[in-house]
Amino acid sequence: MIEKDHIHSAFDQDLKNLQASVMRMGGLVEASIINSSIALADSDEELARKIVEDDHMIDSLETEINLAALELSALRQPIAQDLRFVFAVLKIATNLERIGDYAKNVAKRTTVLLQTSPPDGATASILRLARSVQVLLKDSLDSFAERDVEKAREIIVRDHDIDLMYNSLFREFLTYMMEDPRSITPSMHLHFMAKNLERSGDHITSVAEQVIFLATGEMPKDDRPVGDTTPFESVESKP
Amino acid sequence: MIEKDHIHSAFDQDLKNLQASVMRMGGLVEASIINSSIALADSDEELARKIVEDDHMIDSLETEINLAALELSALRQPIAQDLRFVFAVLKIATNLERIGDYAKNVAKRTTVLLQTSPPDGATASILRLARSVQVLLKDSLDSFAERDVEKAREIIVRDHDIDLMYNSLFREFLTYMMEDPRSITPSMHLHFMAKNLERSGDHITSVAEQVIFLATGEMPKDDRPVGDTTPFESVESKP
Repeated sequence: MIEKDHIHSAFDQDLKNLQASVMRMGGLVEASIINSSIALADSDEELARKIVEDDHMIDSLETEINLAALELSALRQPIAQDLRFVFAVLKIATNLERIGDYAKNVAKRTTVLLQTSPPDGATASILRLARSVQVLLKDSLDSFAERDVEKAREIIVRDHDIDLMYNSLFREFLTYMMEDPRSITPSMHLHFMAKNLERSGDHITSVAEQVIFLATGEMPKDDRPVGDTTPFESVESKP
Repeated sequence: MIEKDHIHSAFDQDLKNLQASVMRMGGLVEASIINSSIALADSDEELARKIVEDDHMIDSLETEINLAALELSALRQPIAQDLRFVFAVLKIATNLERIGDYAKNVAKRTTVLLQTSPPDGATASILRLARSVQVLLKDSLDSFAERDVEKAREIIVRDHDIDLMYNSLFREFLTYMMEDPRSITPSMHLHFMAKNLERSGDHITSVAEQVIFLATGEMPKDDRPVGDTTPFESVESKP
């Protein structure tokens, strides 16, 4: 009995450690998202460079987590919710790594965009979008830590707000381009930055879906076009 | 002994079935990629609509595969390469689902773009890029089926060609926009289509990385900025 308890507590500790690594990875990604946009808003090239350099920490953390999950499965052969946890961790780590890449992309464009002159107000709009994405990510990580299905479901709904924010940015940037061809290049950078943030929201939704799967054993239906919610009609309406 | 063999062959059959589902999912995604660009080149709105409608088949196949992998792990408690196989299948299914979404995005933009007048030659360029992406996906699936590490390594290298093709498209579309503001809207659609295809290449690279991990137990280093390889300098040079 003692032996069994012993094994049990060691197993629980492994699961806790795996979760802690995911939360830590999430924290790094959160910082990367918000800082990349702060770097843009403050014209802080130094900060932007640091984000690009530090992304490898996020990447190696994903590899660490994958290997730890693999080891845990082989060693403990988890079943039921423990097994779903391991699978969810793998999927979430993939999503976090991708979000980290998007933040890195924003930072890379920042270093380039600072050479040009981005339209006034545009960088503030990007920062607003980034803040919303960061909060959404934070809440998705909380829902994971707390196995909070309700919070997870809310996140899937809230990602639509991110899409709407992106859509209005898309229109904003498009008007800059229409008005002045010289703003096309900086506006394209801003477009891709906003797009990277909007896509991050899709990956945060995937995290929330994993939380729901983990807690309920069922995957929520997802009929949204992941990765490209640019307003077709709004573009269509412009000749 | 017989009992053990019996379990064994049943287990092998489960693994074979799981692999077959992944290959089938890959086939559907391949078709979706190439057809979405053919729809654009042939102004075939009907075909574009069909691709958008059929994407749910790809999505439900991913869910099927996830659940089958979960069941197999719980039932057979695989270890070593078998366990890595299950993990690789999960990651590959995620990548295929995402590529399917990108193809759907291209198809959705096709239906919109056909309302406008895309610059001559642009649709042919998109189709060329799509063909290369489709072939890359096919080869990555073969490398998975054959556990061919060499072929998988080649795919990671070949994805750079996709990036280069995308980069030249990016410049091509940018010039259209510079020359004529009325072409900005169709060019933006073409941009996002090309971007969706380029990102598909990144996910195909992830598939190849999973094959290497599956066969060798080691994840290849990946220092490429996934999801955003737009040529910064080429954009920078246009003030």
